Amino acid sequence: MLSLGDEFDRLDAEDPLQRFRVFFDLPEGVVYLDGNSLGALPKAALERACRTVGAEWGQTLISSWNDHGWIDLPLTTGARIAPLVGAKPSEVVVADSVSINLFKVVSAALEARPDRKVIVTDPGNFPTDLYILEGLAASRGQDVSVRYAPAAEIEAALGPEVAAVCLSHVDYRSARIADMAAITRAAHDAGALAVWDLSHSLGAIEVDLNGAGADFAVGCGYKYLNGGPGAPAMLFVAERHQADARQPLSGWMGHAAPFEFVVGYSPAPGIRRFLTGTPPIVSLSILEESVKIIAQAPMRELREKSQRLTSMLIALIEDHCAEYGFRLVSPRDKNLRGSHVLFDHPDGYAIVQALKRRGVIGDFRAPEGMRFGVAPLYNTFGDIREAVCHLLQVMENREYDLDDLRVRASVT
Amino acid sequence: MLSLGDEFDRLDAEDPLQRFRVFFDLPEGVVYLDGNSLGALPKAALERACRTVGAEWGQTLISSWNDHGWIDLPLTTGARIAPLVGAKPSEVVVADSVSINLFKVVSAALEARPDRKVIVTDPGNFPTDLYILEGLAASRGQDVSVRYAPAAEIEAALGPEVAAVCLSHVDYRSARIADMAAITRAAHDAGALAVWDLSHSLGAIEVDLNGAGADFAVGCGYKYLNGGPGAPAMLFVAERHQADARQPLSGWMGHAAPFEFVVGYSPAPGIRRFLTGTPPIVSLSILEESVKIIAQAPMRELREKSQRLTSMLIALIEDHCAEYGFRLVSPRDKNLRGSHVLFDHPDGYAIVQALKRRGVIGDFRAPEGMRFGVAPLYNTFGDIREAVCHLLQVMENREYDLDDLRVRASVT
Repeated sequence: MLSLGDEFDRLDAEDPLQRFRVFFDLPEGVVYLDGNSLGALPKAALERACRTVGAEWGQTLISSWNDHGWIDLPLTTGARIAPLVGAKPSEVVVADSVSINLFKVVSAALEARPDRKVIVTDPGNFPTDLYILEGLAASRGQDVSVRYAPAAEIEAALGPEVAAVCLSHVDYRSARIADMAAITRAAHDAGALAVWDLSHSLGAIEVDLNGAGADFAVGCGYKYLNGGPGAPAMLFVAERHQADARQPLSGWMGHAAPFEFVVGYSPAPGIRRFLTGTPPIVSLSILEESVKIIAQAPMRELREKSQRLTSMLIALIEDHCAEYGFRLVSPRDKNLRGSHVLFDHPDGYAIVQALKRRGVIGDFRAPEGMRFGVAPLYNTFGDIREAVCHLLQVMENREYDLDDLRVRASVT
Repeated sequence: MLSLGDEFDRLDAEDPLQRFRVFFDLPEGVVYLDGNSLGALPKAALERACRTVGAEWGQTLISSWNDHGWIDLPLTTGARIAPLVGAKPSEVVVADSVSINLFKVVSAALEARPDRKVIVTDPGNFPTDLYILEGLAASRGQDVSVRYAPAAEIEAALGPEVAAVCLSHVDYRSARIADMAAITRAAHDAGALAVWDLSHSLGAIEVDLNGAGADFAVGCGYKYLNGGPGAPAMLFVAERHQADARQPLSGWMGHAAPFEFVVGYSPAPGIRRFLTGTPPIVSLSILEESVKIIAQAPMRELREKSQRLTSMLIALIEDHCAEYGFRLVSPRDKNLRGSHVLFDHPDGYAIVQALKRRGVIGDFRAPEGMRFGVAPLYNTFGDIREAVCHLLQVMENREYDLDDLRVRASVT
């Protein structure tokens, strides 16, 4: 057994973010390294859910749309998220899901470049992004198509026929950070727009959409923002595009006067035109409450702690488990790495299951990726020690041989 | 003051649905006649929200997707709704919003009729439906268009160029019930498909989608189903269309193997292909709990009580408020009328506000409609008596003259 002790306790005691852990309700005996799939529960989120359901819906009923600000929640929550991504409050809204928001913003990008018909993406992009682009292209007719280019070849794939480049900021498998500023600049130089999916960076690493000149972006509410399962997603539209932006999911919440019930769609001024139907208020109110917490943490401190945690995880696994054949897929350079770490191992699936039985929750990404995410708001240096101790025991005891389950159902 | 007494108490005492009222948490002193905008809170919904957030998310974390059945909630909840609309369990799913689901099913209808480019709808249809059709047509290029025909002229608007007819089953203003079977038959005779919006009928009146031969449908979770503000919406696809149906919002939840993370979209078999992104689990779990309640009430009893309540409301207003110039917009024939009643009055907005100050909650629909919805699960005959007594007092005292607010923000 590893003897990793005092050093980690000292690091936790000195951690300026340690004060945030008490805001979260984590089960006893669990080392949770899957906040990049589903963030942990903030205690305030449970209170907020009960308040929204019991006091607001139950007692104020329909009047809650005005009396409790439900009607503006997509905008007010968006405005709270804006500083986390280098955007103005009026440039971010919360609605629907990442997939649906991506459909909206890529549609808007195509509308903004009517003479261009190609969307460029990385075949290693998160699959739902690829599926949405595919569905979008098919629905617009044979003249729109998706061009797949690996990350390193994106710039070479640009040309006068390209309307938009659509990429993830942090890769969901490797955690590699794309150079948002450079790729956005290259897209602009080619006359195209840049659409960024921030799902694995929002709330975990510094994001500067306006600094990079990004045009559109989407991001996930239920990972590092801790907004709860299936929390609505963020959507960013740079101010310069808002007045002319059109998107086809033009429901009443995006109308200039939704309660006048007129025939004929007139888009609301500003970002509100990216709303569609009635938002899921209970899920949305939980997200707002969760965002209030992360908004209190300096992003620089979050990033620094995240880097220390992932660097430590890599070093410990490589030092203590060297004989077991783990292969680091994530960048070794902490400045190129987001807030999770992926190691490949031929028995990766079974090892992840064995760790779960010991209370260490990571996840598996086919074909053989063991993924461990750190959430600097609530993960500790002690968590990393525990995780590696358990991993070593799993390997020493070959506990994963006991596991013949090949069912792979979990949600990123 | 009206003396309307014992008769109503007797009716309530004899009401076989009276046992359901205790399942709901309604504020003291309020007569809630807006369940057609936002259904009241079932007590079990609050418990479910706390369980989903505190116990499931908080304690079981990411494993809840399997351990607590989150991943199947869109299907299991859809299956619970199916009997309410005359559908098979495998024909209904819950996802996103009515607006977004409408976009999906009308897109699927267009795909199924590739040589036809016209969508027919009623200009009096609920505005978000019109806006979505408009956005959809624009996004598919100039060859697709929307044709507006008033309800009585739908059949005349059909022709070989029509891909789909898209209508509301119950009109959101007048409560008039469309003849779903006849219009569907006419659409089919013309080679078109029929898409129905059940927002104002689902859970309130008998709906028989398969009996009518309907092709696609959508419906609202937060009105008569009491699923909470912005609850996800239902989506129906007739079994015969499922194998070939394509919809452009092709996110990972609709993929045949969402957790294999492969490049290339392969739609799931069956209704699951109409899912898109990760569903808002907290809002969705509340809806499931609410549907369990209504599923225990015989729809025939719900409908009969609804008809008695709306008939009584009309009779009392016409008998006791005759001098004040209310004009009934809803059909007088109870068999043509859904579960709400609309009276026009030039001071309709101010009167609705005055009623609210007295605790009688209805709503206003421009230009001068006073709308009162009855929810037979929890509204009583006594509610109708109270509402009319207050209306009479508002009119006698001209209380509505005090109200000069013209702000019209409320949500259907």
